[in-house]
Amino acid sequence: MNHDVTEEQIGTVVTKIQNLGHEVNISRGTKRIVIGAIGDEHKLDPEIFDSLPGVEFSMHIVKQYKIVSRESHEKDTVIDASGIPIGGNQIQVIGGPCSVETPEQMDLAAQSVAAAGCRLMRGGAFKPRTSPYTFQGKGVEGLEIFRQAASKQNLPIVTELMDVRMLDTFMKHDVDIIQIGTRNMQNFDLLKEVGRINKPVILKRGISATISEWLMAAEYIAAGGNHNIIFCERGIRTFETAYRNLLDVTCIPVLKKETHLPVIVDPSHAGGKAWMVPSLSRAAIAAGADGLLVETHPNPCEAWCDADQALNPQEFKDLMGSLKGIAEAIGRTI
Amino acid sequence: MNHDVTEEQIGTVVTKIQNLGHEVNISRGTKRIVIGAIGDEHKLDPEIFDSLPGVEFSMHIVKQYKIVSRESHEKDTVIDASGIPIGGNQIQVIGGPCSVETPEQMDLAAQSVAAAGCRLMRGGAFKPRTSPYTFQGKGVEGLEIFRQAASKQNLPIVTELMDVRMLDTFMKHDVDIIQIGTRNMQNFDLLKEVGRINKPVILKRGISATISEWLMAAEYIAAGGNHNIIFCERGIRTFETAYRNLLDVTCIPVLKKETHLPVIVDPSHAGGKAWMVPSLSRAAIAAGADGLLVETHPNPCEAWCDADQALNPQEFKDLMGSLKGIAEAIGRTI
Amino acid sequence: MNHDVTEEQIGTVVTKIQNLGHEVNISRGTKRIVIGAIGDEHKLDPEIFDSLPGVEFSMHIVKQYKIVSRESHEKDTVIDASGIPIGGNQIQVIGGPCSVETPEQMDLAAQSVAAAGCRLMRGGAFKPRTSPYTFQGKGVEGLEIFRQAASKQNLPIVTELMDVRMLDTFMKHDVDIIQIGTRNMQNFDLLKEVGRINKPVILKRGISATISEWLMAAEYIAAGGNHNIIFCERGIRTFETAYRNLLDVTCIPVLKKETHLPVIVDPSHAGGKAWMVPSLSRAAIAAGADGLLVETHPNPCEAWCDADQALNPQEFKDLMGSLKGIAEAIGRTI
Amino acid sequence: MNHDVTEEQIGTVVTKIQNLGHEVNISRGTKRIVIGAIGDEHKLDPEIFDSLPGVEFSMHIVKQYKIVSRESHEKDTVIDASGIPIGGNQIQVIGGPCSVETPEQMDLAAQSVAAAGCRLMRGGAFKPRTSPYTFQGKGVEGLEIFRQAASKQNLPIVTELMDVRMLDTFMKHDVDIIQIGTRNMQNFDLLKEVGRINKPVILKRGISATISEWLMAAEYIAAGGNHNIIFCERGIRTFETAYRNLLDVTCIPVLKKETHLPVIVDPSHAGGKAWMVPSLSRAAIAAGADGLLVETHPNPCEAWCDADQALNPQEFKDLMGSLKGIAEAIGRTI
Repeated sequence: MNHDVTEEQIGTVVTKIQNLGHEVNISRGTKRIVIGAIGDEHKLDPEIFDSLPGVEFSMHIVKQYKIVSRESHEKDTVIDASGIPIGGNQIQVIGGPCSVETPEQMDLAAQSVAAAGCRLMRGGAFKPRTSPYTFQGKGVEGLEIFRQAASKQNLPIVTELMDVRMLDTFMKHDVDIIQIGTRNMQNFDLLKEVGRINKPVILKRGISATISEWLMAAEYIAAGGNHNIIFCERGIRTFETAYRNLLDVTCIPVLKKETHLPVIVDPSHAGGKAWMVPSLSRAAIAAGADGLLVETHPNPCEAWCDADQALNPQEFKDLMGSLKGIAEAIGRTI
Repeated sequence: MNHDVTEEQIGTVVTKIQNLGHEVNISRGTKRIVIGAIGDEHKLDPEIFDSLPGVEFSMHIVKQYKIVSRESHEKDTVIDASGIPIGGNQIQVIGGPCSVETPEQMDLAAQSVAAAGCRLMRGGAFKPRTSPYTFQGKGVEGLEIFRQAASKQNLPIVTELMDVRMLDTFMKHDVDIIQIGTRNMQNFDLLKEVGRINKPVILKRGISATISEWLMAAEYIAAGGNHNIIFCERGIRTFETAYRNLLDVTCIPVLKKETHLPVIVDPSHAGGKAWMVPSLSRAAIAAGADGLLVETHPNPCEAWCDADQALNPQEFKDLMGSLKGIAEAIGRTI
Repeated sequence: MNHDVTEEQIGTVVTKIQNLGHEVNISRGTKRIVIGAIGDEHKLDPEIFDSLPGVEFSMHIVKQYKIVSRESHEKDTVIDASGIPIGGNQIQVIGGPCSVETPEQMDLAAQSVAAAGCRLMRGGAFKPRTSPYTFQGKGVEGLEIFRQAASKQNLPIVTELMDVRMLDTFMKHDVDIIQIGTRNMQNFDLLKEVGRINKPVILKRGISATISEWLMAAEYIAAGGNHNIIFCERGIRTFETAYRNLLDVTCIPVLKKETHLPVIVDPSHAGGKAWMVPSLSRAAIAAGADGLLVETHPNPCEAWCDADQALNPQEFKDLMGSLKGIAEAIGRTI
Repeated sequence: MNHDVTEEQIGTVVTKIQNLGHEVNISRGTKRIVIGAIGDEHKLDPEIFDSLPGVEFSMHIVKQYKIVSRESHEKDTVIDASGIPIGGNQIQVIGGPCSVETPEQMDLAAQSVAAAGCRLMRGGAFKPRTSPYTFQGKGVEGLEIFRQAASKQNLPIVTELMDVRMLDTFMKHDVDIIQIGTRNMQNFDLLKEVGRINKPVILKRGISATISEWLMAAEYIAAGGNHNIIFCERGIRTFETAYRNLLDVTCIPVLKKETHLPVIVDPSHAGGKAWMVPSLSRAAIAAGADGLLVETHPNPCEAWCDADQALNPQEFKDLMGSLKGIAEAIGRTI
C-alpha cells in the first residue's frame, strides 16, 4: 500500500480479497503496510487491486504456470517423438535445411543428416518471411517432398505450422513434431489448436518473450490436453547489432529448474552466421540443453533462404563429432 | 568484401550479381573493396551474398517497403473509417473499454465516449491474454453487444481480430475498423487475409518490432490490395521495469517521414497505468500523432481486465479537454 | 520461501531478521510462506536472504532512495541556477553547441541562444567520444572561451565534467551548472565529489539505466550534501536502429511522482537527427518536462561533432516559438 | 543519397570528400546514388556527411578499431600476468570473493582458490554499489589484506580500479591485473590512465555496450601504449527479469574473430545466482573463452555482498573438475 494509505482504503482491499474467496494477512511495517491474499492465487489478477485507491503495487507470489511447472511434476519428462526420445540422457540433434526446395535437395539433405548420426530432421514448407516479396515456402507440395525424403532415411520430421487452417493437412502428412515459430509464440488460437492434438510440439521462444511468458504460452498448449511440449531457445532481440539474435544460454538452467519439459536450442537462427554455429552449439550442450535444431544444406551457397547460416554436410558432420566430446564430459550421449 | 579478398572471390560475386540480372559497380578503396548491384534491389536478398567466400557483409541501399512508403506516395493518406477521416488535420481519439463485458457496461461506455466528443469507439470481444486461465473475452456475443451499444451513439467500432477463421463473422457484424494486435503483427497469414478485404486496419506495433519490420508487416496487407492501414504505436519492450511498456514517441516523426499512412498511439497499453495516460497522450499529439486509442471504462475498479489502465468517464472527459489545447498549438483540431 | 521449505529453514531466516534488529511477520498461504521484515529496510539487502536455504526470492517493499524521493519532500523543488529557476512554472530551454570550437563560433552561438529567448547556455569543453581518434574537446581552453562568450550575453553555463581531477578548474571558471554525462551516471567517485560542492548538477540518465538506478545515482550526490540535482532524460538504448536512442517520455510523469527534483530532456542526443528535434521537444514539454537541453550551432554543417543533430539559429528560434504554444496549453510559461 | 537528390547536392558531398584528402567513387543505381570515399577512413566521421543536404545516411565500411583488431595482428596474443599466461591453450579460472572483508576470510579464500587449482585470484577492495548506503568496500586497507593473503599462496591478484586518483596506490601494492568495471567501460579518463602503465587490464563489458563500443574502449587503452588487454563478458541488460543479466556467449566467437586479445567470462555477475554458475561456466568454456572470473567465498551466507552468487569452496572445487572435461573435449587444458 502507499505510504499515506488510509484505514478505509485498507478495508476496501481486504473486503475485495474476502469477496473473492480468500483469506487475508496484514503485515504492518514501519513504512509500509503489506496485505496478503491466501488461497488459490491463480484466480486473482494483480490488475484487480492495482486500480484500487491506496494500492502502490500488487504481485503474484506463486507462479502462474501449473501443468508445465516442475513443482507439479518433479521428474524430467521424456517425450516420444515417433520412437525417438527427447529429454532423456540422449541428446538429439535435429538437422536439415531452412526450407524445402526440391526433391533432390531434400534427398541429399536427408542423406547427410542421417549420415551425420541424427535421428530427426527439420525443414520448412511454410516460411514466415519479413517481406511479402520474398520466397514464402513451397507449401503443401513442400510437405510431401519432405515427408518422402525423410521417410527414405527413417527420420521423423519437424516442420513449422503457421496457420490453424493447415493443421489437418499436417496431420494427414503425418508430421511427427509440429514447430510453433517465434512470431507465433503468443498466437493463442494456434496454441489452443495444437493443444487439442497428440503430437509433440516444439515451442520456439518469442523474439522478446520473457521466460515467464514462454512458460505461460506452453501452459496454453498443456491446458488443452497436449503435454508433449519441447521448449526451443533461438536467440532473443537486444541492442547488439553484431549478430542477428542473442543466444540466451542462461534460460537453459532456468527452464530446467522451472519446468519438467525438454529444452533444445537453435544455434543457427540465434547467431545467423554459419561460422558461429559450432561455438554456440557446444555452449548450448555444455549448459544442459537436451538437443539442437541446426540448419544444414547440401549446398548452402545455393540455398533459397538463410543461406548464410546453413552448415554444409562436412561442417555438419564435424560439428556432430565435436559435440560428442562435450556430451561425454557432462555424462550424456548424443 | 573482406580485407584479404581474392580476385577470384570478387569474380564469383560479380558473376552472381550479373546472373541475377543486375549491373555491377566496383569501388576499390585503400582498405576495402565495395561491390554494388545496380537494378531492382527488391529481388535481391543480402543472404544470397553473405554466404559467398570473401564477403564481409552485404546490405540493401533501398528500403524494402514499396506501397506503404512515402517515396511511392508523397501526400498524406486520409483513411475513411465509415465516414470518419483518419490521417487528416483532425485528430481522432478512439475511446472505449479494454473488453466488452455486459450490454449495460457497453451502453454506459458508448455514452461517455460520445459525450467526451469522440467519433470512434474501441472494445475487445476477443482478448489475447498471457494466461489461459484468465478471462478470454466474450467472443461473438461480445461483438453483438458492442455493435448495438456503439450504433445507438452512431460510433463506428474498432475491435481486434485474432483468428483468421473469425474474419467472416467480423464482416457480418460490420466491424468498421479491424485491429491487428501486437502479438499478431507478424502473423503473416492473418495479415494476408485482412489484405484481401476493404476495411481499414489498425496495425499495432509488435512488442519489439523495429520500424522497418512494422512497415514490412503493413506491406503484407498492402500487397494484398488493402491500402487502408493505420499504424498504432503502443509501447515497446525494454529493460525498464517501472512501466509496462515504453512509449516510443520518436517513431511518430520517423513514420511520418517513411510512410504516407496515418499513425496513432495507444497510451493506455504503453504506460499500463491510468495516471500516466494524460501525460503520454499529450506527448503523442504534440509529437504529431494522428490519433489515440484510449481505454476508458464506466467503472474502472470493476473492469474485467486491465482495470489499472482505464480512465473513468470524468478523467476521460478532462483528457479530451486538455488535448484540445495541444492540438491548437500545433494547428490541428480534435 | 520455496514450496518445499522446512520449518528449520524458516527458523534460520527469522533468526537472521531478528539478529539484524527487525521484527518478523509470517504469512502462511496455501502454496507459499511469505516472511516479512519490519523495521528500517534501508539496512537490509535482499542478497543477505537470497543465499539462505529455502528462500525463493526476497525483495524490498520500500524504495531505496530517500533524500531525492517525493515521499521525503512533497513539494516540487525549484533550483536556483545563478539566478535562473529550474523546476518551477517557467520552462527553461538550454541551448548551445555540442562542443566549444572557437571564440567566434561561441560568440555567434551565445548571441543566437540569447536572441531565441533562452536564459541558459550549454557547450562541451571535454567530450566523451567513442573513438580515441576523434576530437576530444578543447579542454580548459574551451572552458575559458565558453565562459567569456556566455558572459557577454549574461547566460549562466552548463558543461560536462568527466574527470574528478578537473572539478577545481570547473569551480575556478565558475561553471554555473555541472553536467554529469550518460557514461558517468554510475561513476560513483565522480558523483561523490559533486555531492560535496554547492553547484546545481544535471545528472543525465545512463544509456540503459533504470529509473531506480538513476534515482540511486542522484542519491549518491544528495547523500554528500548537494541537493541541487536536475534529472536529464536523453534517450535509452533499445533494439531499434532507426534512431540513435529512444526518448523515454514515460520517465517524465514517473519521475515527477517519485522525486521532487526537476526533470529536463535532451531531444538532440535522443533522436540524433536535427529534423527529429522539434517533434521530440514538443512531446517532452507536453509530457511535463521542466526544460530542454538542445543542440544548436551557428553553422551545423561545419560543426566539429554531432553535426547532424544541431539546429541552425533559425530552426532553433522557430522551435522556441512552437514550444510557447505547448507551454501555454498546459498552463506554463517558457 | 536521397532518392530526390540533386546534382548540386552530389557536388557538395564530392567536394567535401576531396577537401578532406580522399578520392571519390560514385555508383549510380536505378533508385539510389551511392558515393564512396576512398582513403584513410579513420579520419572521417559519418556525422560530417549526415548533415549535408541530400544525404540519406553515411557509414564506415572499415571498422574503427585498429591496434586491437585481428586485422592488425593475425595471431592470438598471450598476455603475461606476473608469470601466468592468459590467452593461450591453457584456460585460467580466476576465483575469489566479491569483496575483501577480513584477513581471515581472505586467507581462507586464497587457500580454497589455490586448492581448487586456480593460478590467479580476484577480490574487490573498492566496490561500485548502486546504493550509497550499502558497504562500499574496505578501500586501501582491503588492498593490503588481499595482497598478503594472495601472496601466501603465490597467487597474482585481480582487483577493480574505480578512481584515477587510486592508480598510484594500486601500483604501490603491486596489483597484478587491474580490472575496469562494467560501469567504467566508457570512463575515458580512466581508460587513458591505465593505457599509460604496463599492467594487464581486464576490461569488463558495459552493461549495454555493443561489441564495437567495447573494442573502441579497448582501443583507448591500447592507443596509450598498453596492449595487455583482456576482454571480460559479464552479462548484458535485456528485458528478461528472471536473471540479473544475460550472458552473451555469442560475443566469444565474435571477439575471437575481431580481435587478437584474450576473452574471459564472469558467470557469477551474469546469472547472479550461485546455482546458475556451473552451467554458465561450462557454456563459456565450450564456446571458446580463455578463462573465467568466478566468485567463491569461504562462507557465502556470511558474505558482505553478492552473497547469493558466490560458490562455497566445495562447489568451486567441483566446478573446476567439471570444467576439466569440457576443456579436454575442445583440446585445451585448465
